[in-house]
Amino acid sequence: MAKVLNSEEVDTGLAQLKGWVLRGNEIEKRYEFNDFREAIAFVNAVADEAEKVDHHPDITINYNKVLLALSTHNAGGLTEKDFGLARDIDFI
Amino acid sequence: MAKVLNSEEVDTGLAQLKGWVLRGNEIEKRYEFNDFREAIAFVNAVADEAEKVDHHPDITINYNKVLLALSTHNAGGLTEKDFGLARDIDFI
Repeated sequence: MAKVLNSEEVDTGLAQLKGWVLRGNEIEKRYEFNDFREAIAFVNAVADEAEKVDHHPDITINYNKVLLALSTHNAGGLTEKDFGLARDIDFI
Repeated sequence: MAKVLNSEEVDTGLAQLKGWVLRGNEIEKRYEFNDFREAIAFVNAVADEAEKVDHHPDITINYNKVLLALSTHNAGGLTEKDFGLARDIDFI
């Protein structure tokens, strides 16, 4: 099982990302697109990355806004799997 | 603008749906699929129906679980647009 990161490791991980913030045991990022269709296209791109690494963000879609939240639930906190996927998503 | 339905009309609308419940000013339905990929496929089918009628549910995806919530925000409540789209979604 992936190791839960300590707060220093979390800070280091966040510094390598664009626009992700820590909220409790999760890191999250908010996106705003031109419309619903663009939001759905982005969600599909995220889904492809998620399937590649078998790690899946919680996804909330409100018309043109998307919220992604990452945590490693079975480890009970943030792990390198979350930061790895967040970096992949930042490259979409 | 679509007319906000009264509580009797909302009850009548809900009776024509499968598994939708009233929560505040919204109707919502929870789905559970075998895995994330099936959940995403369903969300894409919902998105197609939503685009057809230019009315869009709020969508939350947690791995294999999907929550849809419908309300007509610019009318300030539930309208026939919500029940029409919910019926369309029930036919997916």
